[in-house]
Amino acid sequence: MESIPVKLQEHERVDDLLTNDLHIIQSGEVFSFSMDAVLLSRFCTVPPRGKIMDLCTGNGVIPLLLTTRTKANIWGVEIQERLADMADRNVRLNGLEEQVRIMQGDLRTIHETLGYGKFDLVTVNPPYMKARTGDQNLNPHVAAARHEIFCTLDDVAAACSRLVRTGGKVAMVHRPSRLVEILHALSKYRLEAKRIRFVHPRQGEESNMVLIEAIRDGKPEVKLLPPLIVYKNNHEYCEELMEIYYGNRDSLSSEEGKEGGER
Amino acid sequence: MESIPVKLQEHERVDDLLTNDLHIIQSGEVFSFSMDAVLLSRFCTVPPRGKIMDLCTGNGVIPLLLTTRTKANIWGVEIQERLADMADRNVRLNGLEEQVRIMQGDLRTIHETLGYGKFDLVTVNPPYMKARTGDQNLNPHVAAARHEIFCTLDDVAAACSRLVRTGGKVAMVHRPSRLVEILHALSKYRLEAKRIRFVHPRQGEESNMVLIEAIRDGKPEVKLLPPLIVYKNNHEYCEELMEIYYGNRDSLSSEEGKEGGER
Repeated sequence: MESIPVKLQEHERVDDLLTNDLHIIQSGEVFSFSMDAVLLSRFCTVPPRGKIMDLCTGNGVIPLLLTTRTKANIWGVEIQERLADMADRNVRLNGLEEQVRIMQGDLRTIHETLGYGKFDLVTVNPPYMKARTGDQNLNPHVAAARHEIFCTLDDVAAACSRLVRTGGKVAMVHRPSRLVEILHALSKYRLEAKRIRFVHPRQGEESNMVLIEAIRDGKPEVKLLPPLIVYKNNHEYCEELMEIYYGNRDSLSSEEGKEGGER
Repeated sequence: MESIPVKLQEHERVDDLLTNDLHIIQSGEVFSFSMDAVLLSRFCTVPPRGKIMDLCTGNGVIPLLLTTRTKANIWGVEIQERLADMADRNVRLNGLEEQVRIMQGDLRTIHETLGYGKFDLVTVNPPYMKARTGDQNLNPHVAAARHEIFCTLDDVAAACSRLVRTGGKVAMVHRPSRLVEILHALSKYRLEAKRIRFVHPRQGEESNMVLIEAIRDGKPEVKLLPPLIVYKNNHEYCEELMEIYYGNRDSLSSEEGKEGGER
Protein backbone atom coordinates (compact mmCIF):
# COMPACT_ATOMS: atom_id res chain seq x y z
CA MET A 1 0.00 0.00 0.00
CA GLU A 2 1.68 3.17 -1.11
CA SER A 3 -0.60 5.69 0.55
CA ILE A 4 -2.73 4.98 3.58
CA PRO A 5 -6.18 6.62 3.49
CA VAL A 6 -6.43 6.89 7.28
CA LYS A 7 -4.20 8.39 9.95
CA LEU A 8 -2.02 6.28 12.21
CA GLN A 9 -1.61 7.15 15.86
CA GLU A 10 1.59 6.80 17.85
CA HIS A 11 2.92 3.19 18.08
CA GLU A 12 0.43 1.93 15.50
CA ARG A 13 1.52 -0.15 12.54
CA VAL A 14 -0.22 -1.63 9.49
CA ASP A 15 -0.03 -5.43 9.12
CA ASP A 16 -0.96 -7.61 6.18
CA LEU A 17 -3.84 -10.03 6.94
CA LEU A 18 -2.49 -12.30 4.18
CA THR A 19 -5.87 -12.76 2.54
CA ASN A 20 -7.85 -10.79 -0.04
CA ASP A 21 -5.30 -7.96 0.21
CA LEU A 22 -6.70 -7.01 3.63
CA HIS A 23 -4.59 -4.85 5.93
CA ILE A 24 -5.04 -4.06 9.61
CA ILE A 25 -3.89 -1.34 11.97
CA GLN A 26 -2.55 -2.76 15.20
CA SER A 27 -0.61 -1.60 18.22
CA GLY A 28 1.38 -3.58 20.71
CA GLU A 29 0.48 -0.93 23.30
CA VAL A 30 -3.27 -0.99 22.73
CA PHE A 31 -4.49 -4.03 20.80
CA SER A 32 -3.18 -6.69 18.43
CA PHE A 33 -5.35 -9.54 17.28
CA SER A 34 -4.50 -13.13 18.18
CA MET A 35 -4.84 -16.54 16.53
CA ASP A 36 -8.08 -16.97 18.51
CA ALA A 37 -9.83 -14.34 16.39
CA VAL A 38 -8.54 -15.84 13.16
CA LEU A 39 -9.72 -19.33 14.12
CA LEU A 40 -13.13 -18.07 15.24
CA SER A 41 -13.67 -16.20 11.99
CA ARG A 42 -12.99 -19.46 10.09
CA PHE A 43 -14.86 -21.79 12.45
CA CYS A 44 -18.23 -20.05 12.53
CA THR A 45 -21.00 -20.99 10.11
CA VAL A 46 -21.48 -17.82 8.08
CA PRO A 47 -24.76 -16.89 6.40
CA PRO A 48 -24.19 -15.91 2.76
CA ARG A 49 -26.36 -12.81 3.27
CA GLY A 50 -28.19 -11.19 6.18
CA LYS A 51 -26.74 -9.58 9.30
CA ILE A 52 -23.76 -10.48 11.45
CA MET A 53 -22.74 -8.95 14.78
CA ASP A 54 -19.23 -9.15 16.23
CA LEU A 55 -19.17 -8.27 19.93
CA CYS A 56 -15.93 -7.25 21.72
CA THR A 57 -14.63 -6.51 18.24
CA GLY A 58 -11.35 -4.88 19.36
CA ASN A 59 -9.60 -3.51 16.27
CA GLY A 60 -12.23 -5.15 14.06
CA VAL A 61 -10.18 -8.13 12.89
CA ILE A 62 -13.14 -10.56 12.87
CA PRO A 63 -15.43 -8.32 10.76
CA LEU A 64 -12.55 -7.79 8.32
CA LEU A 65 -11.89 -11.50 7.97
CA LEU A 66 -15.61 -12.32 7.69
CA THR A 67 -15.91 -10.07 4.63
CA THR A 68 -13.89 -12.69 2.74
CA ARG A 69 -16.60 -15.31 3.41
CA THR A 70 -19.94 -13.52 3.05
CA LYS A 71 -21.90 -10.68 1.51
CA ALA A 72 -23.77 -10.18 4.82
CA ASN A 73 -23.75 -6.80 6.53
CA ILE A 74 -21.45 -6.89 9.51
CA TRP A 75 -21.60 -4.83 12.70
CA GLY A 76 -18.74 -4.63 15.17
CA VAL A 77 -19.31 -3.34 18.71
CA GLU A 78 -16.49 -2.26 20.98
CA ILE A 79 -16.80 -0.54 24.35
CA GLN A 80 -13.37 1.17 24.37
CA GLU A 81 -13.37 4.36 22.33
CA ARG A 82 -9.70 4.08 21.46
CA LEU A 83 -10.26 0.59 19.98
CA ALA A 84 -13.59 1.39 18.30
CA ASP A 85 -11.75 4.23 16.55
CA MET A 86 -9.00 1.85 15.45
CA ALA A 87 -11.60 -0.63 14.16
CA ASP A 88 -13.39 2.14 12.29
CA ARG A 89 -10.14 3.23 10.64
CA ASN A 90 -9.52 -0.43 9.72
CA VAL A 91 -12.84 -0.56 7.89
CA ARG A 92 -11.95 2.60 5.94
CA LEU A 93 -8.35 1.44 5.36
CA ASN A 94 -9.79 -1.54 3.47
CA GLY A 95 -12.62 0.37 1.77
CA LEU A 96 -15.26 -1.80 3.49
CA GLU A 97 -17.56 1.00 4.71
CA GLU A 98 -20.48 -0.40 2.73
CA GLN A 99 -20.32 -3.84 4.36
CA VAL A 100 -18.95 -3.20 7.86
CA ARG A 101 -20.09 -0.74 10.48
CA ILE A 102 -18.28 -0.20 13.79
CA MET A 103 -20.13 1.13 16.82
CA GLN A 104 -18.69 2.24 20.12
CA GLY A 105 -21.05 0.81 22.71
CA ASP A 106 -21.70 -1.53 25.61
CA LEU A 107 -22.89 -5.05 24.78
CA ARG A 108 -25.11 -4.94 27.86
CA THR A 109 -27.25 -2.19 26.34
CA ILE A 110 -26.62 -2.35 22.59
CA HIS A 111 -30.00 -4.07 21.98
CA GLU A 112 -31.65 -0.78 22.99
CA THR A 113 -30.27 0.66 19.75
CA LEU A 114 -30.21 -2.43 17.54
CA GLY A 115 -33.26 -4.35 18.78
CA TYR A 116 -33.84 -8.00 19.69
CA GLY A 117 -33.33 -11.00 17.41
CA LYS A 118 -32.13 -9.13 14.35
CA PHE A 119 -28.86 -11.00 13.64
CA ASP A 120 -28.27 -14.28 11.82
CA LEU A 121 -24.89 -14.78 13.46
CA VAL A 122 -23.23 -13.24 16.50
CA THR A 123 -19.50 -13.82 16.97
CA VAL A 124 -17.57 -12.99 20.11
CA ASN A 125 -13.99 -13.31 21.33
CA PRO A 126 -14.61 -12.12 24.89
CA PRO A 127 -12.10 -11.49 27.68
CA TYR A 128 -11.10 -14.90 29.04
CA MET A 129 -10.21 -14.18 32.63
CA LYS A 130 -12.39 -13.16 35.52
CA ALA A 131 -11.69 -9.70 36.91
CA ARG A 132 -9.16 -9.78 39.75
CA THR A 133 -7.60 -13.11 38.71
CA GLY A 134 -4.14 -13.72 37.28
CA ASP A 135 -1.73 -10.91 36.44
CA GLN A 136 -3.99 -8.13 35.39
CA ASN A 137 -2.17 -6.16 32.71
CA LEU A 138 -1.47 -2.57 33.83
CA ASN A 139 -2.29 -1.15 30.39
CA PRO A 140 -6.06 -0.57 30.67
CA HIS A 141 -6.76 -1.41 27.00
CA VAL A 142 -4.98 -4.75 27.16
CA ALA A 143 -6.43 -5.47 30.60
CA ALA A 144 -9.98 -4.96 29.31
CA ALA A 145 -9.40 -7.35 26.41
CA ARG A 146 -8.15 -10.08 28.75
CA HIS A 147 -10.13 -9.61 31.95
CA GLU A 148 -13.86 -9.36 32.55
CA ILE A 149 -13.71 -5.67 33.45
CA PHE A 150 -16.51 -4.33 31.28
CA CYS A 151 -18.55 -7.54 30.99
CA THR A 152 -18.78 -11.01 32.51
CA LEU A 153 -19.30 -14.28 30.66
CA ASP A 154 -22.93 -14.11 31.74
CA ASP A 155 -23.26 -10.60 30.22
CA VAL A 156 -21.75 -11.88 26.96
CA ALA A 157 -24.12 -14.85 26.69
CA ALA A 158 -27.10 -12.67 27.53
CA ALA A 159 -26.12 -10.11 24.87
CA CYS A 160 -25.60 -12.79 22.20
CA SER A 161 -29.00 -14.27 23.02
CA ARG A 162 -30.78 -10.90 22.79
CA LEU A 163 -29.21 -10.00 19.46
CA VAL A 164 -29.47 -13.31 17.55
CA ARG A 165 -32.69 -14.45 15.90
CA THR A 166 -34.39 -17.75 16.78
CA GLY A 167 -32.46 -20.42 14.86
CA GLY A 168 -29.55 -18.04 14.36
CA LYS A 169 -26.02 -18.89 15.45
CA VAL A 170 -23.66 -17.68 18.13
CA ALA A 171 -19.96 -18.50 17.79
CA MET A 172 -17.51 -17.97 20.63
CA VAL A 173 -13.85 -18.65 21.32
CA HIS A 174 -12.77 -19.11 24.94
CA ARG A 175 -10.57 -21.02 27.34
CA PRO A 176 -11.35 -24.73 27.85
CA SER A 177 -10.73 -24.39 31.59
CA ARG A 178 -14.04 -22.49 31.77
CA LEU A 179 -15.98 -24.96 29.63
CA VAL A 180 -18.55 -25.88 32.26
CA GLU A 181 -19.31 -22.24 33.04
CA ILE A 182 -19.50 -21.36 29.32
CA LEU A 183 -22.01 -24.11 28.56
CA HIS A 184 -24.09 -23.14 31.59
CA ALA A 185 -24.16 -19.50 30.53
CA LEU A 186 -25.16 -20.40 26.97
CA SER A 187 -27.94 -22.74 28.14
CA LYS A 188 -29.21 -20.15 30.59
CA TYR A 189 -29.89 -17.84 27.65
CA ARG A 190 -31.37 -20.55 25.38
CA LEU A 191 -28.23 -20.89 23.28
CA GLU A 192 -27.80 -24.61 22.63
CA ALA A 193 -24.21 -25.67 21.87
CA LYS A 194 -24.20 -27.60 18.58
CA ARG A 195 -20.56 -27.70 17.42
CA ILE A 196 -17.48 -27.69 19.63
CA ARG A 197 -13.87 -27.86 18.51
CA PHE A 198 -10.92 -28.01 20.87
CA VAL A 199 -7.60 -26.52 19.83
CA HIS A 200 -4.41 -28.12 21.15
CA PRO A 201 -0.99 -26.47 20.70
CA ARG A 202 0.65 -29.80 19.80
CA GLN A 203 -0.22 -33.49 19.54
CA GLY A 204 -0.39 -34.97 23.04
CA GLU A 205 -0.92 -31.61 24.78
CA GLU A 206 -3.94 -30.30 26.68
CA SER A 207 -6.31 -27.96 24.88
CA ASN A 208 -5.76 -24.22 25.41
CA MET A 209 -8.61 -22.89 23.26
CA VAL A 210 -12.17 -23.92 22.50
CA LEU A 211 -14.43 -22.89 19.62
CA ILE A 212 -18.15 -23.22 20.32
CA GLU A 213 -21.12 -22.62 18.06
CA ALA A 214 -24.61 -22.53 19.52
CA ILE A 215 -28.06 -22.14 18.00
CA ARG A 216 -30.73 -19.96 19.60
CA ASP A 217 -33.47 -22.39 20.71
CA GLY A 218 -31.68 -25.30 19.01
CA LYS A 219 -32.28 -28.96 19.85
CA PRO A 220 -29.94 -30.30 22.54
CA GLU A 221 -27.34 -32.40 20.73
CA VAL A 222 -23.74 -31.35 20.21
CA LYS A 223 -21.04 -32.47 17.76
CA LEU A 224 -17.47 -32.73 18.98
CA LEU A 225 -15.41 -31.97 15.90
CA PRO A 226 -11.94 -33.37 15.28
CA PRO A 227 -9.33 -31.59 17.41
CA LEU A 228 -7.33 -28.81 15.77
CA ILE A 229 -3.62 -29.26 16.41
CA VAL A 230 -1.74 -26.01 15.85
CA TYR A 231 1.95 -26.92 15.61
CA LYS A 232 3.53 -30.01 14.16
CA ASN A 233 6.77 -29.29 16.02
CA ASN A 234 8.27 -26.38 17.96
CA HIS A 235 8.01 -23.88 15.13
CA GLU A 236 5.98 -25.09 12.18
CA TYR A 237 2.22 -24.84 11.84
CA CYS A 238 0.27 -27.97 10.93
CA GLU A 239 -1.12 -28.16 7.43
CA GLU A 240 -4.60 -27.00 8.46
CA LEU A 241 -3.20 -23.89 10.14
CA MET A 242 -1.06 -23.14 7.10
CA GLU A 243 -4.19 -23.30 4.98
CA ILE A 244 -6.08 -21.04 7.37
CA TYR A 245 -3.35 -18.42 7.38
CA TYR A 246 -2.04 -18.64 3.84
CA GLY A 247 -4.42 -20.71 1.78
CA ASN A 248 -8.08 -21.60 1.44
CA ARG A 249 -9.74 -19.59 4.18
CA ASP A 250 -12.78 -21.84 4.43
CA SER A 251 -11.01 -24.93 5.64
CA LEU A 252 -12.32 -24.74 9.21
CA SER A 253 -15.92 -24.58 8.16
CA SER A 254 -16.33 -27.45 5.74
CA GLU A 255 -19.75 -28.25 7.17
CA GLU A 256 -21.15 -24.85 6.38
CA GLY A 257 -23.36 -25.90 3.47
CA LYS A 258 -24.90 -28.81 5.33
CA GLU A 259 -25.81 -26.82 8.42
CA GLY A 260 -27.78 -23.98 6.94
CA GLY A 261 -31.20 -25.01 8.15
CA GLU A 262 -30.20 -27.00 11.19
CA ARG A 263 -31.99 -26.48 14.46
CA MET B 1 -7.82 -72.05 32.64
CA GLU B 2 -8.28 -75.75 32.71
CA SER B 3 -11.14 -75.97 35.18
CA ILE B 4 -13.61 -73.19 35.75
CA PRO B 5 -14.67 -72.76 39.40
CA VAL B 6 -18.09 -71.34 38.47
CA LYS B 7 -20.96 -72.56 36.31
CA LEU B 8 -21.62 -71.15 32.86
CA GLN B 9 -25.16 -70.57 31.65
CA GLU B 10 -26.42 -71.09 28.13
CA HIS B 11 -24.68 -68.94 25.49
CA GLU B 12 -22.05 -67.76 27.96
CA ARG B 13 -18.34 -67.88 27.15
CA VAL B 14 -15.15 -67.08 29.05
CA ASP B 15 -12.89 -64.43 27.50
CA ASP B 16 -9.35 -63.44 28.40
CA LEU B 17 -9.04 -59.84 29.68
CA LEU B 18 -5.42 -59.88 28.50
CA THR B 19 -4.06 -58.48 31.74
CA ASN B 20 -3.01 -59.98 35.07
CA ASP B 21 -4.43 -63.35 33.95
CA LEU B 22 -7.97 -62.03 34.39
CA HIS B 23 -10.84 -63.83 32.68
CA ILE B 24 -14.45 -62.77 32.20
CA ILE B 25 -17.76 -64.48 31.52
CA GLN B 26 -19.70 -62.78 28.73
CA SER B 27 -22.69 -63.44 26.56
CA GLY B 28 -23.67 -61.91 23.25
CA GLU B 29 -27.30 -62.46 24.26
CA VAL B 30 -27.11 -60.78 27.64
CA PHE B 31 -24.05 -58.60 28.11
CA SER B 32 -20.55 -58.16 26.69
CA PHE B 33 -18.30 -55.35 27.80
CA SER B 34 -17.17 -52.68 25.36
CA MET B 35 -14.09 -50.55 24.83
CA ASP B 36 -15.86 -47.81 26.78
CA ALA B 37 -15.54 -49.78 30.02
CA VAL B 38 -11.88 -50.56 29.38
CA LEU B 39 -11.05 -46.91 28.68
CA LEU B 40 -12.95 -45.71 31.74
CA SER B 41 -11.16 -48.17 34.01
CA ARG B 42 -7.83 -46.77 32.73
CA PHE B 43 -8.85 -43.09 32.65
CA CYS B 44 -10.10 -42.69 36.20
CA THR B 45 -7.80 -41.53 38.99
CA VAL B 46 -7.69 -44.52 41.32
CA PRO B 47 -7.01 -44.26 45.05
CA PRO B 48 -4.32 -46.73 46.14
CA ARG B 49 -6.52 -47.78 49.06
CA GLY B 50 -10.00 -46.98 50.35
CA LYS B 51 -13.35 -47.69 48.74
CA ILE B 52 -14.48 -47.66 45.11
CA MET B 53 -18.04 -48.03 43.79
CA ASP B 54 -18.85 -49.06 40.21
CA LEU B 55 -22.47 -48.30 39.30
CA CYS B 56 -24.23 -50.01 36.36
CA THR B 57 -21.49 -52.63 36.67
CA GLY B 58 -22.98 -55.07 34.13
CA ASN B 59 -20.85 -58.23 34.17
CA GLY B 60 -18.35 -56.52 36.49
CA VAL B 61 -15.67 -55.73 33.94
CA ILE B 62 -14.70 -52.40 35.51
CA PRO B 63 -14.23 -53.80 39.05
CA LEU B 64 -12.14 -56.64 37.59
CA LEU B 65 -9.91 -54.24 35.64
CA LEU B 66 -9.60 -51.85 38.60
CA THR B 67 -8.12 -54.64 40.75
CA THR B 68 -4.99 -54.41 38.58
CA ARG B 69 -4.51 -50.78 39.63
CA THR B 70 -5.39 -50.59 43.34
CA LYS B 71 -5.67 -52.38 46.66
CA ALA B 72 -8.94 -50.52 47.40
CA ASN B 73 -12.10 -52.44 48.17
CA ILE B 74 -14.43 -52.35 45.20
CA TRP B 75 -18.20 -52.58 45.12
CA GLY B 76 -20.17 -53.20 41.94
CA VAL B 77 -23.92 -52.50 41.81
CA GLU B 78 -26.16 -53.85 39.06
CA ILE B 79 -29.95 -53.67 38.92
CA GLN B 80 -30.53 -56.69 36.65
CA GLU B 81 -30.38 -59.96 38.59
CA ARG B 82 -29.15 -61.93 35.60
CA LEU B 83 -26.18 -59.55 35.18
CA ALA B 84 -25.46 -59.16 38.88
CA ASP B 85 -25.20 -62.96 39.01
CA MET B 86 -22.81 -62.96 36.05
CA ALA B 87 -20.69 -60.26 37.71
CA ASP B 88 -20.63 -62.24 40.95
CA ARG B 89 -19.47 -65.35 39.13
CA ASN B 90 -16.79 -63.24 37.44
CA VAL B 91 -15.45 -62.19 40.83
CA ARG B 92 -15.28 -65.83 41.94
CA LEU B 93 -13.87 -66.97 38.59
CA ASN B 94 -10.89 -64.72 39.26
CA GLY B 95 -10.64 -65.43 42.98
CA LEU B 96 -11.25 -61.78 43.84
CA GLU B 97 -13.91 -62.27 46.54
CA GLU B 98 -11.77 -60.51 49.14
CA GLN B 99 -11.42 -57.30 47.12
CA VAL B 100 -14.62 -57.09 45.04
CA ARG B 101 -18.22 -57.35 46.16
CA ILE B 102 -21.17 -57.38 43.74
CA MET B 103 -24.63 -56.26 44.89
CA GLN B 104 -27.88 -56.53 43.03
CA GLY B 105 -29.61 -53.21 43.64
CA ASP B 106 -30.98 -49.94 42.34
CA LEU B 107 -28.59 -46.97 42.23
CA ARG B 108 -31.49 -44.71 43.19
CA THR B 109 -31.77 -46.34 46.62
CA ILE B 110 -28.42 -48.03 47.22
CA HIS B 111 -27.33 -45.25 49.62
CA GLU B 112 -29.99 -46.54 52.03
CA THR B 113 -27.81 -49.62 52.46
CA LEU B 114 -24.35 -48.16 51.89
CA GLY B 115 -24.71 -44.66 53.32
CA TYR B 116 -23.71 -41.21 52.12
CA GLY B 117 -20.18 -40.07 51.17
CA LYS B 118 -18.40 -43.33 51.91
CA PHE B 119 -16.57 -43.82 48.60
CA ASP B 120 -13.29 -42.31 47.37
CA LEU B 121 -14.15 -42.99 43.74
CA VAL B 122 -17.38 -43.81 41.93
CA THR B 123 -17.15 -45.07 38.34
CA VAL B 124 -20.09 -45.44 35.99
CA ASN B 125 -20.67 -46.51 32.39
CA PRO B 126 -24.39 -45.68 32.25
CA PRO B 127 -26.88 -46.33 29.44
CA TYR B 128 -26.22 -43.68 26.78
CA MET B 129 -29.59 -43.23 25.14
CA LYS B 130 -32.78 -41.75 26.50
CA ALA B 131 -35.67 -44.21 26.83
CA ARG B 132 -37.83 -44.28 23.71
CA THR B 133 -35.11 -42.95 21.38
CA GLY B 134 -33.26 -44.81 18.63
CA ASP B 135 -33.75 -48.50 17.95
CA GLN B 136 -34.48 -49.91 21.34
CA ASN B 137 -33.04 -53.40 21.42
CA LEU B 138 -35.73 -56.06 21.92
CA ASN B 139 -33.56 -58.10 24.27
CA PRO B 140 -34.40 -56.53 27.65
CA HIS B 141 -30.89 -57.00 29.08
CA VAL B 142 -29.20 -55.29 26.18
CA ALA B 143 -31.92 -52.62 26.02
CA ALA B 144 -31.37 -51.75 29.70
CA ALA B 145 -27.63 -51.38 29.18
CA ARG B 146 -28.15 -48.97 26.27
CA HIS B 147 -31.31 -47.06 27.12
CA GLU B 148 -32.29 -45.14 30.23
CA ILE B 149 -34.89 -47.67 31.29
CA PHE B 150 -33.96 -48.16 34.93
CA CYS B 151 -32.26 -44.80 35.50
CA THR B 152 -31.85 -41.41 33.82
CA LEU B 153 -28.65 -39.38 33.57
CA ASP B 154 -30.00 -37.25 36.41
CA ASP B 155 -30.48 -40.37 38.56
CA VAL B 156 -26.92 -41.45 37.81
CA ALA B 157 -25.39 -38.08 38.74
CA ALA B 158 -27.49 -37.92 41.92
CA ALA B 159 -26.40 -41.43 42.95
CA CYS B 160 -22.71 -40.70 42.29
CA SER B 161 -22.99 -37.54 44.36
CA ARG B 162 -24.64 -39.29 47.30
CA LEU B 163 -22.09 -42.11 47.40
CA VAL B 164 -18.81 -40.19 46.92
CA ARG B 165 -17.09 -38.35 49.77
CA THR B 166 -16.35 -34.61 49.61
CA GLY B 167 -13.18 -34.30 47.53
CA GLY B 168 -13.68 -37.79 46.14
CA LYS B 169 -13.86 -38.50 42.42
CA VAL B 170 -16.57 -39.56 40.01
CA ALA B 171 -15.54 -40.94 36.61
CA MET B 172 -18.03 -41.44 33.80
CA VAL B 173 -17.95 -42.50 30.16
CA HIS B 174 -20.72 -41.23 27.87
CA ARG B 175 -21.63 -39.94 24.44
CA PRO B 176 -20.26 -36.50 23.46
CA SER B 177 -23.60 -35.59 21.87
CA ARG B 178 -25.00 -35.31 25.40
CA LEU B 179 -22.07 -33.28 26.79
CA VAL B 180 -24.11 -30.23 27.77
CA GLU B 181 -26.68 -32.32 29.62
CA ILE B 182 -23.96 -34.38 31.34
CA LEU B 183 -22.13 -31.31 32.63
CA HIS B 184 -25.40 -29.80 33.83
CA ALA B 185 -26.34 -32.98 35.68
CA LEU B 186 -22.92 -33.20 37.33
CA SER B 187 -23.00 -29.55 38.41
CA LYS B 188 -26.52 -29.91 39.74
CA TYR B 189 -25.22 -32.51 42.20
CA ARG B 190 -22.05 -30.61 43.14
CA LEU B 191 -19.79 -32.75 40.98
CA GLU B 192 -17.33 -30.38 39.33
CA ALA B 193 -15.82 -31.68 36.07
CA LYS B 194 -12.02 -31.51 36.38
CA ARG B 195 -10.65 -33.73 33.58
CA ILE B 196 -12.27 -34.41 30.21
CA ARG B 197 -10.88 -36.55 27.42
CA PHE B 198 -12.57 -36.99 24.07
CA VAL B 199 -12.14 -40.22 22.16
CA HIS B 200 -12.16 -40.08 18.34
CA PRO B 201 -12.29 -43.25 16.21
CA ARG B 202 -9.70 -41.88 13.77
CA GLN B 203 -7.69 -38.73 13.11
CA GLY B 204 -9.97 -36.10 11.54
CA GLU B 205 -13.21 -37.72 12.78
CA GLU B 206 -15.77 -36.45 15.28
CA SER B 207 -15.62 -37.76 18.82
CA ASN B 208 -17.91 -40.68 19.68
CA MET B 209 -16.99 -41.11 23.34
CA VAL B 210 -16.14 -38.83 26.24
CA LEU B 211 -14.39 -39.63 29.51
CA ILE B 212 -15.17 -37.22 32.35
CA GLU B 213 -13.79 -37.07 35.87
CA ALA B 214 -15.41 -34.80 38.43
CA ILE B 215 -14.61 -33.96 42.05
CA ARG B 216 -17.32 -33.66 44.70
CA ASP B 217 -17.30 -29.97 45.70
CA GLY B 218 -14.23 -29.32 43.55
CA LYS B 219 -13.16 -25.88 42.35
CA PRO B 220 -14.57 -24.97 38.93
CA GLU B 221 -11.71 -25.39 36.47
CA VAL B 222 -11.47 -28.22 33.96
CA LYS B 223 -8.57 -29.70 31.98
CA LEU B 224 -9.17 -30.82 28.42
CA LEU B 225 -6.72 -33.66 27.96
CA PRO B 226 -5.16 -34.59 24.61
CA PRO B 227 -7.66 -36.42 22.39
CA LEU B 228 -7.47 -40.20 22.33
CA ILE B 229 -7.45 -41.50 18.74
CA VAL B 230 -8.44 -45.17 18.61
CA TYR B 231 -7.45 -46.43 15.16
CA LYS B 232 -4.48 -45.43 13.06
CA ASN B 233 -6.16 -46.86 9.96
CA ASN B 234 -9.15 -49.08 9.21
CA HIS B 235 -8.03 -52.00 11.35
CA GLU B 236 -5.08 -51.23 13.55
CA TYR B 237 -5.25 -49.64 16.99
CA CYS B 238 -3.08 -46.62 17.70
CA GLU B 239 -0.10 -47.16 19.95
CA GLU B 240 -1.88 -45.88 23.06
CA LEU B 241 -4.76 -48.32 22.58
CA MET B 242 -2.34 -51.18 22.03
CA GLU B 243 -0.71 -50.29 25.32
CA ILE B 244 -4.06 -50.12 27.07
CA TYR B 245 -5.14 -53.52 25.79
CA TYR B 246 -1.89 -55.39 25.71
CA GLY B 247 0.73 -53.43 27.58
CA ASN B 248 1.14 -51.03 30.46
CA ARG B 249 -2.38 -50.59 31.77
CA ASP B 250 -1.71 -47.25 33.41
CA SER B 251 -1.05 -45.28 30.25
CA LEU B 252 -4.36 -43.38 30.30
CA SER B 253 -3.81 -42.11 33.80
CA SER B 254 -0.37 -40.61 33.66
CA GLU B 255 -1.48 -37.66 35.77
CA GLU B 256 -2.63 -39.82 38.62
CA GLY B 257 0.22 -39.03 40.98
CA LYS B 258 -0.10 -35.29 40.51
CA GLU B 259 -3.81 -35.14 41.08
CA GLY B 260 -4.11 -36.94 44.38
CA GLY B 261 -4.93 -33.97 46.57
CA GLU B 262 -6.49 -31.71 43.99
CA ARG B 263 -9.72 -29.94 44.74
